[in-house]
Amino acid sequence: MTEASPTRRRRAGGRAAGAARAAAHVIDQQPWRLPRNNDRPTEPLTPEGVEALHKGAMRILSEIGIEFLNEEAVGYLREAGCKVEGQNVFFDPEFVQEMVARAPASYTITPRNPDRQLIMGENVMLFGNVSSPPNAWDLERGKRPGDMETYVEFIKLTQYFNCIHFAGGYPVEPIDVHASVRHLDCLFEKLTLTDKVAHAYSLGKERVEDVMEMVRIAGGLTHEEFEASPRMYTNINSVSPLKHDFPMLDGAMRLARRGQPVVVTPFTLAGAMAPVTLAGAVSLSLAEGLAAIALLQWIAPGCPVAIGTFTSNVDMKSGAPAFGTPEYMRATQMTGQMARFYGLPMRASGVCAANVPDGQAMWETSNSLWSAVQSGANMVYHAAGWLEGGLIASPEKFVMDCEVIQHIQRYFEPQMLGVTEDDLAFDAINEVGPGGHFFGCQHTQDRYQEAFYGPFLSDWRNYEAWRLDGAVWTAERAHKTYKAILGEFEPPPMDIAIRDELADFVARRKSEGGAPTDF
Amino acid sequence: MTEASPTRRRRAGGRAAGAARAAAHVIDQQPWRLPRNNDRPTEPLTPEGVEALHKGAMRILSEIGIEFLNEEAVGYLREAGCKVEGQNVFFDPEFVQEMVARAPASYTITPRNPDRQLIMGENVMLFGNVSSPPNAWDLERGKRPGDMETYVEFIKLTQYFNCIHFAGGYPVEPIDVHASVRHLDCLFEKLTLTDKVAHAYSLGKERVEDVMEMVRIAGGLTHEEFEASPRMYTNINSVSPLKHDFPMLDGAMRLARRGQPVVVTPFTLAGAMAPVTLAGAVSLSLAEGLAAIALLQWIAPGCPVAIGTFTSNVDMKSGAPAFGTPEYMRATQMTGQMARFYGLPMRASGVCAANVPDGQAMWETSNSLWSAVQSGANMVYHAAGWLEGGLIASPEKFVMDCEVIQHIQRYFEPQMLGVTEDDLAFDAINEVGPGGHFFGCQHTQDRYQEAFYGPFLSDWRNYEAWRLDGAVWTAERAHKTYKAILGEFEPPPMDIAIRDELADFVARRKSEGGAPTDF
Repeated sequence: MTEASPTRRRRAGGRAAGAARAAAHVIDQQPWRLPRNNDRPTEPLTPEGVEALHKGAMRILSEIGIEFLNEEAVGYLREAGCKVEGQNVFFDPEFVQEMVARAPASYTITPRNPDRQLIMGENVMLFGNVSSPPNAWDLERGKRPGDMETYVEFIKLTQYFNCIHFAGGYPVEPIDVHASVRHLDCLFEKLTLTDKVAHAYSLGKERVEDVMEMVRIAGGLTHEEFEASPRMYTNINSVSPLKHDFPMLDGAMRLARRGQPVVVTPFTLAGAMAPVTLAGAVSLSLAEGLAAIALLQWIAPGCPVAIGTFTSNVDMKSGAPAFGTPEYMRATQMTGQMARFYGLPMRASGVCAANVPDGQAMWETSNSLWSAVQSGANMVYHAAGWLEGGLIASPEKFVMDCEVIQHIQRYFEPQMLGVTEDDLAFDAINEVGPGGHFFGCQHTQDRYQEAFYGPFLSDWRNYEAWRLDGAVWTAERAHKTYKAILGEFEPPPMDIAIRDELADFVARRKSEGGAPTDF
Repeated sequence: MTEASPTRRRRAGGRAAGAARAAAHVIDQQPWRLPRNNDRPTEPLTPEGVEALHKGAMRILSEIGIEFLNEEAVGYLREAGCKVEGQNVFFDPEFVQEMVARAPASYTITPRNPDRQLIMGENVMLFGNVSSPPNAWDLERGKRPGDMETYVEFIKLTQYFNCIHFAGGYPVEPIDVHASVRHLDCLFEKLTLTDKVAHAYSLGKERVEDVMEMVRIAGGLTHEEFEASPRMYTNINSVSPLKHDFPMLDGAMRLARRGQPVVVTPFTLAGAMAPVTLAGAVSLSLAEGLAAIALLQWIAPGCPVAIGTFTSNVDMKSGAPAFGTPEYMRATQMTGQMARFYGLPMRASGVCAANVPDGQAMWETSNSLWSAVQSGANMVYHAAGWLEGGLIASPEKFVMDCEVIQHIQRYFEPQMLGVTEDDLAFDAINEVGPGGHFFGCQHTQDRYQEAFYGPFLSDWRNYEAWRLDGAVWTAERAHKTYKAILGEFEPPPMDIAIRDELADFVARRKSEGGAPTDF
């Protein structure tokens, strides 16, 4: 348990029951829901294109192979009949497809609060917080390295917003806490300050095992109950091109064996770690992703997995990564087609290259979020708070992104699309007549409260009213909103005995030295 | 010819040949092109839903009727067999469908520079400047009423950006020029400073006839040549609910008779001028639009038309119009489905409620632009420069929007989606191998210059480089960019004899008193 966050300690515990009520004070947000995306996906590839990308991926797997920097994994794959040369594993396409076919098309993930259960798959679209930036930035404090105080702020925002479904990786890396025990403090905060699905980094045996144990304790579960169904997840990245490293594979296998989901997300930047052509970058990404999924399905048949995309492009002048570009959007849509081809749930992201929460940040993020919608993605990582290509987490951006995510979730609501007699409103149109106004008519009065999306951050007043009220630009409004949220935040309820058990576990593991830091 | 813009006079004329060269100095923009949207549209309505909206619109037309505040129009419709009560015209659904079927599914519009010819219809998507705000705003001068100097600035931006296909209505209303002669000065500037398709306001006989004559002169056309094919267009709005006013109908009929396109765009704000339900608002919009199209097809069979959508919703707390909302997006997509059902080209918009070019402005505009893409819209009005629900034109927003529009146009490029052996890049992946880098390989070297979208405004540098360079937020960068563009702008070439003829026409019409201002 960290000492860096005294406010957390003061607020946690007995006052939890008031959380929902208190939260309602700051902003009027949309309700928690599992949004379903009924739109037909945008499919830039023809059926022949899908076949070509599949064959491209299979050819990479069978003729070039993937390096697994993990002896245990290599051993399993040798046992499965794969040709192995050193750490390089060649995959027979039929084996890969057979293994991938074992993966469930959808599954639930149930955190300590069963009301926050997620469906991963079908046409459900889930959104998560920004994960893993080393730095934070806000309008008041500027850019600075992450610390536990800031980490806690983001965890509170993650819990607060109903449109955020899961608590992904650390929203900012708290470097003021020693790496050996950081996962213990971070997960303690995450599991007490949120009741949403949590993520474990695959960064060494001890961390993975500790986090699984803490999620089990937080859920009040026996070991058997924990392993009976998904309760948390990890995300692993390949070391593109063509490599999976030791700790990622180790963590993925540990979770898979215990029935916990693994999202496999290659990071293939076209022009850098991947070919400059989108078909090349996506087929490489698929090959890397499917290789890990084949391994996991071999050792734990039917284990829950998902395939992620993080294919974007670099600026060919500077080598800087770009996000939310036309290429990014098309790569995401193409991956969506391939995920459906393989019958796998899909992960995308809400990302940008901008350094501050301004216009560029929002058009890049909008592009990436809409491409996630268009691709039929099931899970959107980094959906709130990401800046500078993932090097900065910003609370203003978090709040602004949540407004956009709320737009998207409302956009999915089917009641908007009704075409009954009532919806067609013939009688109201007849009643109001030429040149009339609908505001006062009964048809409007009966429906106006739920008829339209109500924003919490957008300012729809005219210029003069907006100016009289201080002429506050969006980022500054978001700054005030995030502070107001933190000021009122109260953690979700948690049984005191469970909280104590978690705290005891953290204390014991700290006294044992935590995790090795020689990775 | 206005006296308000001395710089224009100094620059026009002989130096025109250098325009393209000079323009290339400020930013490296994408080429002029007619982008084709090959994406399958997003269709929120089922086939039964389409049928329901169609029947809803037909029932409004046949049972409630539409008021035509124009005796000539009423006379034509009476002659066509419609039942008329006062100014209210009832339409038989079969008559409407028969008339609508006369409209061409697509047509060209050819401005004075034939290289700027547009295709209106098919899967082509055209973008235009913001039209008709009474006010301008920029970072330096703040909000102020429109004037001719500002009008000219926006006309130059309209010409400068290759991604802008047509010069719509006045990008800002120059109220320092008397209304009787404003159209003469505005069109003189538009027709000399741009060579793109121009718009005429349907605001009285004299204005419409003057603008058609000026477009004819600018194109060096005989009257017969002018009438032989579309050279310009007008946009008319109904007075929702259920009314078309005199000057709009008058202008529309004048253009239709001479074979010039008419875009009919009802402005149905759900909850105000239209039912609070989307199906009601869209069916009312369709009824109003189809009524005007039926009239035009009766008097000029086969004349080029398009159906527009401007259905959005109001904030039910304040009555303020909202744009780029989930409801706006769905209404646009629904209208796209209906436009395809009727076989008509479709107009949408790029709009927002924000007062300044900040994050909100860009997520609202992104939402509206992507819904235009998703709806298969052929023409996007207000795509660059719009703020405050259309009450403000902003040059910073213009420049920012053009970056987003360039993204969209690049997104449509089919070469990104190639799946040939070359695109799949197997050999390059094999050559680079595990852990390698693609930057130096031949496959990348052969393609890197054209591989990715290159922005002119987005800043993709890391935070430190961005900060060292002044930490300039997007709106401020856009401010500098727009000024640099204006500093280098040179008008497109125009034959001096034609220019003189245009100037003479303007002088003569001014001496005659211009247009009456009692409208």
